[in-house]
Amino acid sequence: MDLFPVLKELHQKSPRKILLVVLDGVGGLPPESGGPTELEAARTPNLDRLAVESALGLLTPVYPGLTPGSGPGHLALFGYDPFRYVVGRGALSALGLGVDFREGDVALRGNFATLGPDGQVLDRRAGRPSTEENQRVVAKLQEAIPRIEDVEVYFYTESEHRFLVVLRGEGLGDGITDSDPQKTGLPPLKAQALDEASRKTARIVNLLSERIQEVLKDEPGINGALFRGASRRPSFPSMAEVYGLKAAAIASYPMYKGLAALVGMEVLPVEGEGDAHEGKLKALQENWERYDFFYLHFKKTDAKGEDGDFWGKVAEIERFDALLPEILRLDPDILAITGDHSTPALLKGHSWHPVPLLLKAPYLRKDGALRFTEGEAAKGSLGHLRGVELMPLLLAHAGRLLKYGA
Amino acid sequence: MDLFPVLKELHQKSPRKILLVVLDGVGGLPPESGGPTELEAARTPNLDRLAVESALGLLTPVYPGLTPGSGPGHLALFGYDPFRYVVGRGALSALGLGVDFREGDVALRGNFATLGPDGQVLDRRAGRPSTEENQRVVAKLQEAIPRIEDVEVYFYTESEHRFLVVLRGEGLGDGITDSDPQKTGLPPLKAQALDEASRKTARIVNLLSERIQEVLKDEPGINGALFRGASRRPSFPSMAEVYGLKAAAIASYPMYKGLAALVGMEVLPVEGEGDAHEGKLKALQENWERYDFFYLHFKKTDAKGEDGDFWGKVAEIERFDALLPEILRLDPDILAITGDHSTPALLKGHSWHPVPLLLKAPYLRKDGALRFTEGEAAKGSLGHLRGVELMPLLLAHAGRLLKYGA
Repeated sequence: MDLFPVLKELHQKSPRKILLVVLDGVGGLPPESGGPTELEAARTPNLDRLAVESALGLLTPVYPGLTPGSGPGHLALFGYDPFRYVVGRGALSALGLGVDFREGDVALRGNFATLGPDGQVLDRRAGRPSTEENQRVVAKLQEAIPRIEDVEVYFYTESEHRFLVVLRGEGLGDGITDSDPQKTGLPPLKAQALDEASRKTARIVNLLSERIQEVLKDEPGINGALFRGASRRPSFPSMAEVYGLKAAAIASYPMYKGLAALVGMEVLPVEGEGDAHEGKLKALQENWERYDFFYLHFKKTDAKGEDGDFWGKVAEIERFDALLPEILRLDPDILAITGDHSTPALLKGHSWHPVPLLLKAPYLRKDGALRFTEGEAAKGSLGHLRGVELMPLLLAHAGRLLKYGA
Repeated sequence: MDLFPVLKELHQKSPRKILLVVLDGVGGLPPESGGPTELEAARTPNLDRLAVESALGLLTPVYPGLTPGSGPGHLALFGYDPFRYVVGRGALSALGLGVDFREGDVALRGNFATLGPDGQVLDRRAGRPSTEENQRVVAKLQEAIPRIEDVEVYFYTESEHRFLVVLRGEGLGDGITDSDPQKTGLPPLKAQALDEASRKTARIVNLLSERIQEVLKDEPGINGALFRGASRRPSFPSMAEVYGLKAAAIASYPMYKGLAALVGMEVLPVEGEGDAHEGKLKALQENWERYDFFYLHFKKTDAKGEDGDFWGKVAEIERFDALLPEILRLDPDILAITGDHSTPALLKGHSWHPVPLLLKAPYLRKDGALRFTEGEAAKGSLGHLRGVELMPLLLAHAGRLLKYGA
């Protein structure tokens, strides 16, 4: 069910401002059976007080059992059906690195590999080189291969064996097969065009693979490259178009800025390193009058979860709690706090578990919740929602949706 | 996901009767934060007793955040996906007025307008005339314009500046653009056909607009008409076809009788004015043996909510509570009580909030609920449902659905 045609018809203006706070990966699990989750273990006096006057609900980011990547998790929170609005692997990497990636460009995920004398793949990850080694090779390639035919080629280091290529030129479709054979003992595959518009891309990628092997032929470890996930920058309808919202994003990491830009948010500059609490608050305060909708992202809850650092994640939740009074001082009409997915420290990675949702807004039913936790959320008066259902709810509370049908 | 093909395969006969009670707009909000909703404020000893031996659930009528009109809200409760089974504005008005509206007819919503000397719209609502003034003009138009070409034209008063036209003739499609320019300073638009089958309709509507201006040219206020929402009477599969149910509707207001007729219910006559509690009870009792399914509608809960009359809505809930023992005396096998949407007195209109659902039936799990309220429903053992999911649940409890798959 694509609700966008309906929302395009129904949205109207309102002076009420919406603030969507995403605590990345905030949902957790108890490391010991019966014990507290990260949210339950955290001391959060400000969130607790807010929970009492808010309504809670349980939000399944994408689909029960599906562990969302950052792309689908966020797009769902922005109201974009993550099964319909798909960001290819190459494009997501380009967004994640924050590199220059324009409409019409094609981005490809690359693996540095070790090839044998007959050209077969010996190691798909070239012995997991250091990121510094990757950077050295990327610089060498960039100098040697600035273009193929009339197509500009840009190389970027991700980490270890992973790198990114962006192709820039006329007439580059992204319908090509991967050159990565996904196993050793085979030579790299020839990229093949899946449609007429991608024939040039396939030719360029195959020439690029050959040129890379020539340039690296004397290297001991990294002497080849495998490509996958060719994708253009997606062209999604904007939040202005679909919701009538003038929307701004406040985030520190390129991936989230990139995802926000994809749905037409203006990405505000943020001062400071890491999660930059002060810088984000300042950006929010200084731009408060200029937008209808703010997406405010905090990354470290997820990062600590990925590290398996339960108490580190607890501390990040408490850091946000300490910032909350300053945010509340702006008196947002509609304030939603949630996550794009769970990242339980126990699992050291994203998980499929639902996330708690807190909504402070006019026109709420009372809710017995005393804290912002997974358990309280499961009993909340907002019920159980999918990620993609959040935006219509926020718009409704903001008075931004007309009645559906007479 | 359209479940109708599945339900058509799976339904079977059963002697168990289903009674669906719709308390229009019953869901509410606390006027003061932390206070009771209308349902929570009402004294409802009979509903309370019933809640204890029933199961509750929370029902989102159409989609989170969407405020349903009566059409989508009801069609969802009848199991008809409100995004798939759409009733056009003109058709819904015709149903709401209860006028003669047949298959093949096209209904149009009209606004009486004031046009300037050059034909531009000065006032899209002709200064909001009284309903009596509207009736006078409608009578004048009906006499002067009984037909255009071979198409019969019927005029009906709605209220103030709003009227309805029904066109009856051969070959009238409903794919035409509105003549209402939606702003002043422009002349009425020419209706244009969006498909071949609607060319005649567009021509007739444009001739009708001209004729109306001729007939009203000496009127001081109302001297033109703007049309929108041209629609044929929809042709939906019947509840007999989809569910194998012989279904009857007991309602007082034309809109609900019309919606019930659209899904093939037999509309039973009801004696008395307004919500006619006694008349409805009598219709239910006298026809109890003759149908498998009854839709029993009460309107005043919504009307009081629309008026912003919190205690009036409370009183209507209490009135229904007083009637409940008589209904229970019929011993319905399956009794569902819910609303088609919320109409919080606080908002003086429909809202997007979920509604409570009460189900008294065989084969329920125990439910801690002590009352029929929004809060108890959110914790109920039926969980959280969409409006469109209710009918399969009722059929299941009635033993009317076979196993899906072997």
